Amino acid sequence: MSANVLALRVRDERGALARIAGAIANHGAVITGLELGASSGGVHLMSVELEPGVDLDALSDVLRAVSDVLECSQPPAFEKIFGARVIVIGGGAQVAAVASGAVQEADRHNIRGERISVDTIPLVGEASIAEAVRAVPRLPRARVLVLAGSLMGGDIATAVTEIREAGISVISLRMAGTVPDAADLVVSDPLQAGVMAVMHIASTAKFDIARVRGQRY
Amino acid sequence: MSANVLALRVRDERGALARIAGAIANHGAVITGLELGASSGGVHLMSVELEPGVDLDALSDVLRAVSDVLECSQPPAFEKIFGARVIVIGGGAQVAAVASGAVQEADRHNIRGERISVDTIPLVGEASIAEAVRAVPRLPRARVLVLAGSLMGGDIATAVTEIREAGISVISLRMAGTVPDAADLVVSDPLQAGVMAVMHIASTAKFDIARVRGQRY
Repeated sequence: MSANVLALRVRDERGALARIAGAIANHGAVITGLELGASSGGVHLMSVELEPGVDLDALSDVLRAVSDVLECSQPPAFEKIFGARVIVIGGGAQVAAVASGAVQEADRHNIRGERISVDTIPLVGEASIAEAVRAVPRLPRARVLVLAGSLMGGDIATAVTEIREAGISVISLRMAGTVPDAADLVVSDPLQAGVMAVMHIASTAKFDIARVRGQRY
Repeated sequence: MSANVLALRVRDERGALARIAGAIANHGAVITGLELGASSGGVHLMSVELEPGVDLDALSDVLRAVSDVLECSQPPAFEKIFGARVIVIGGGAQVAAVASGAVQEADRHNIRGERISVDTIPLVGEASIAEAVRAVPRLPRARVLVLAGSLMGGDIATAVTEIREAGISVISLRMAGTVPDAADLVVSDPLQAGVMAVMHIASTAKFDIARVRGQRY
């Protein structure tokens, strides 16, 4: 979690990312994460996470020499700004309840210096939800998924198995369908599900899903 | 919003991104957004958004020939999976209330085929919040920020002015401090602030912040 981050303002031009990534690789640094926002007024804002140990001052000088780079600065790590992410997917009423528990629990940890964020999307339908579940491991900083609904199964359960293999922990509300059987943990109360998801990724909490895997609360 | 997306599984090796971005540039395609997740088991999951009009089948073949690329597929656009993002920053109780309104409103639009997600982080302190506000334009797909607190001013107000210039709309709860004066819109009720934020970015809603800029509700 001690990734180094550079924030860049980059010209919206063909090949810009290749030139920037090439300069980083030539400098011998390894990129561990990257977020490139949509361009506004011909400029992309970009955040690059690098392996710990990289000399950011030297690399910044290298990047400022790339013609596409308008600005390069060292903000605190993205991991430190928005932190590890709890993702909540499901039906509106239940997603809102899980998010409420998760946000209020995250507040208690963030006040003590952590950075945990809670990201949600309300969706309907097996195909839409399965697709969103499969995309979670591609979201930077995503650590745990809460599935909040009353009925989920079929391809969603398959997607849950896949993303658990990719390193994402999954909490399911107690619900109809096969998703609870595919999840790491099943929780009846949506507020508690949100709280537990945050506690799982908080270093200031003792809760660890690995120690209660397969339980139903 | 019709960006084309390729999902890649990429070896976690120095220079991998440079080789991939280079192959994309050589193929003549322009990258409009990119999310590279942390590696798990030596593999990064990556999502690349490309300018509309790119032949994704041809580009996929090009990318599969890059030795770092283990897999390349065409999922629905990230913009379509997780969609445009409402970001909520502030104190836990108020962030939870704004998120509840926003998630329930997003549900109503997502059921009609939109994809709007609501992402939150509870934070305390002027410096932490100002820093998070300044980072919002670097978040892929971020469109509108809601500041949910009881007192915000100083450098947070400066950060609000900066990100509005970068194209992010800002809604502030009615609160003490100078942030309400810096925002596009001020709303007293946190649920309504969340609902309005979603309506602003929903194409199935008529609400547009530009038409009520400077108002206080």
